[in-house]
Amino acid sequence: MRVYLDHNATTALRPEARAAMGEAMDIVGNPSSVHSEGRRAKAFLESCRARLAAALGAEGAEIVFTGSATEAAAMALAGRGIACSGVEHDAVASWCDASLRAEASGRVTPSDAGFSTLQLANSETGVLQDLPDGLWMSDFTQGFGKVAVDFLRSGPLMAIVSAHKLGGPKGVGALVMRRGIDLDPVLKGGGQEMGRRAGTENLIGIAGFAAAAEAAARDVSAGRWEAVRERRDLLEEALAATDKPPILVGKDAPRLPNTSCLLSAGWKGETQVMQMDLAGFAISAGSACSSGKVKTSPVLRAMGFDEAEAGCGIRVSLGLETERDDILRFADTWAAQAKKQAARAA
Amino acid sequence: MRVYLDHNATTALRPEARAAMGEAMDIVGNPSSVHSEGRRAKAFLESCRARLAAALGAEGAEIVFTGSATEAAAMALAGRGIACSGVEHDAVASWCDASLRAEASGRVTPSDAGFSTLQLANSETGVLQDLPDGLWMSDFTQGFGKVAVDFLRSGPLMAIVSAHKLGGPKGVGALVMRRGIDLDPVLKGGGQEMGRRAGTENLIGIAGFAAAAEAAARDVSAGRWEAVRERRDLLEEALAATDKPPILVGKDAPRLPNTSCLLSAGWKGETQVMQMDLAGFAISAGSACSSGKVKTSPVLRAMGFDEAEAGCGIRVSLGLETERDDILRFADTWAAQAKKQAARAA
Repeated sequence: MRVYLDHNATTALRPEARAAMGEAMDIVGNPSSVHSEGRRAKAFLESCRARLAAALGAEGAEIVFTGSATEAAAMALAGRGIACSGVEHDAVASWCDASLRAEASGRVTPSDAGFSTLQLANSETGVLQDLPDGLWMSDFTQGFGKVAVDFLRSGPLMAIVSAHKLGGPKGVGALVMRRGIDLDPVLKGGGQEMGRRAGTENLIGIAGFAAAAEAAARDVSAGRWEAVRERRDLLEEALAATDKPPILVGKDAPRLPNTSCLLSAGWKGETQVMQMDLAGFAISAGSACSSGKVKTSPVLRAMGFDEAEAGCGIRVSLGLETERDDILRFADTWAAQAKKQAARAA
Repeated sequence: MRVYLDHNATTALRPEARAAMGEAMDIVGNPSSVHSEGRRAKAFLESCRARLAAALGAEGAEIVFTGSATEAAAMALAGRGIACSGVEHDAVASWCDASLRAEASGRVTPSDAGFSTLQLANSETGVLQDLPDGLWMSDFTQGFGKVAVDFLRSGPLMAIVSAHKLGGPKGVGALVMRRGIDLDPVLKGGGQEMGRRAGTENLIGIAGFAAAAEAAARDVSAGRWEAVRERRDLLEEALAATDKPPILVGKDAPRLPNTSCLLSAGWKGETQVMQMDLAGFAISAGSACSSGKVKTSPVLRAMGFDEAEAGCGIRVSLGLETERDDILRFADTWAAQAKKQAARAA
C-alpha cells in the first residue's frame, strides 16, 4: 500500500472538481461566440471566475485564467526587473533580480515592496511570509488552499495561483489583480480575458479549478488543516527522536501545516527519495518542477546551507487524507534507512 | 431543436476524449516527480504525445504541449519578424509582418518560405493552401482533423494545432517541430517539456487531445468528411437558388469540406448571426476569437473585398453529425430572413 506524501508537488483531484469537469464537458459553445451556445459557455466561465474570486477573497478584483501559475508569473513579472529572494520558485525567479536576502529562518523583508515579489508560502520548507502592503506580486501557489487567503485584505497588488495544488486539475492557473493594474499580454491574438490573455479558455479545467478552490477554502475555514498540522508535528517529533535526527528546516518560522523539510548531512536528498520510493513512500527532494534533474536546492542555499548540505534535503508534504498510521510507518521506515545509511558511511 | 453550425469555432467533446480524460483524472502524480506516482504520470503523458504524433504523421518530430495553439504560435513566431498574409488568424498575425499578398481566391504564395508562415486552412473561408518546403511554420488548427495531415511529409518546419477544433477539450494545444529546431521558451521556470515550456502539464486535457486526435485522424482516413462535403455543397446549391444568392467566398479554391463563407452585401454579418441565432441556428461572422467585438473580417479584406462588403460575411461550418435535414432547414430559414432583409432595405 503506497503512501503519497508529496502533496506540494501535486494533489489528487477532488470529487467536487471531477463533478464540475463532467458538467463542463457537456458545454458545446466557445465562450467568445455570440450565439446562444457561446453565451452559455461564457456564462459558465464567468460563474467559475466568481467562485474562484470568492474562494480567494478577491471579489471586485480581476482574475485572468491562464494555463499555469508559471504563465501567470510571466504576465506579472516579465521584463520588469522586479526584485526577489532565493526562496522563490523558478517560475518567479526566472524573471526577477535575485537581490533580496533571505534570513536563516527563510523569511524575507523586501526593501521596496512595489518593486518586489514575495511568496506566501515556500513549497520546499512551508515557511510563510508576511506580505507588505503594495507588494508588486505574491506567489500564492502553495499557500492557497492550505491557509486562509484574503487577497483584497492582504498586501500584494497581484497574486498567482494554481489549481493542481489544491485538488484541481493540472494545467490551470490564474493571475489575480487589483483593479486598475494594466499589463501587456504575454499571449496575443484573440480578445479573450478582456484582451489580457489570448487563447480559447480551458473551460473544463477552469470548472475543476473553481470547484476545487471553493472546496479547499471551505476546508481551511473548517479548520481541517489543524489535524494535518498535528500529524506533521508528530512526524517531526518521531524523527527528532531517532539516532540520527535530521535538521527540521524552517521549524522556527511560521509554516504551512502540512510541510516538513528534513536535512540529513551526508545523505543525498535524491537518494532518500529513491530509497523511500522503493519502500512505498512518495516524497521529494526540492521542487518537482526541476523535472528529474538532480540539483541542489536554491531555497536551502538561500537560507544559508552550503552546497553539500543543500543537496541533502527532502520534503514530506501531507494531505487532508494522510492518516496518523501513514506518518508512523514513514517515520519508522525513514529511521531504518537512516541507520543503514549511517552504517554505509561509517 | 437547435442546430449547431459553428464547428470551426469549437466542437463538442468526442466520447473518446471524455473517456480518456476520465482515466487521466485518476492519475495522482506530477509528471516531473521522480517517484513511482510521478513516473506513472510521465509515462501517461508520453503515451499521449506518441498518440498525437501518430495522428499528425509526426513520429520522430518533437511535440511540445501548450495551453492553446495561440501559445504555440507565440513560441514559433514572437520576435522573429516572420512574414504572413492577411488571411492568417490573429494569434499568428499578431507576431508577424503582414507583407504577403493573398490572391482573390484567398491563396497565398510566400516569396521566402523559411521566413514565412502560412496556414493549412482558413477558419473563415475554409480555403486550403499548398505549403512550400522549408516553410517556417504552418497553422494547422483548422485543417487538422478535417483533412489528411502528414506533418513530416509536408513542407513546414513547425506546425501548431489545437484540441478543441477536432473534438478535444478547449485550452490545449501543441507545437510540432522537426528535430533540430531550437526555440527559446516563452514560459520560463520549471524544466517541463525538455525545457521548452515551463508549467505543470495539463494531463487531463492532453489525454483528451490525444484521444480526440486519434479518433479524428481515423475519421479522416475513413472518408467521413466526404458526406459532410456533400451536405455543404447541398447548402451552397440551395442558397445559390434563392432570390438573393450570397457570394460563396473561396468557392473556386480547394477548401475544407465543412466550411461555407457567405457574403450578402448590405446585410451585416453580425445581424445575420443574431437573426439566425433567434431562429435556432448557431453560425458566426468571422472568427470567434474576436470575442463579441463587431469588426470587419481581415480575411475578407485580404481577399479584396471592401470594408462594407467584408462586414457582411457569415461562416457556416458543419460537423460530422450535421444532418441533411439541418442543412435544408438552415437554407429555408436563411432565405426567409434574406427576403425580409431585402424588404427592409427597399
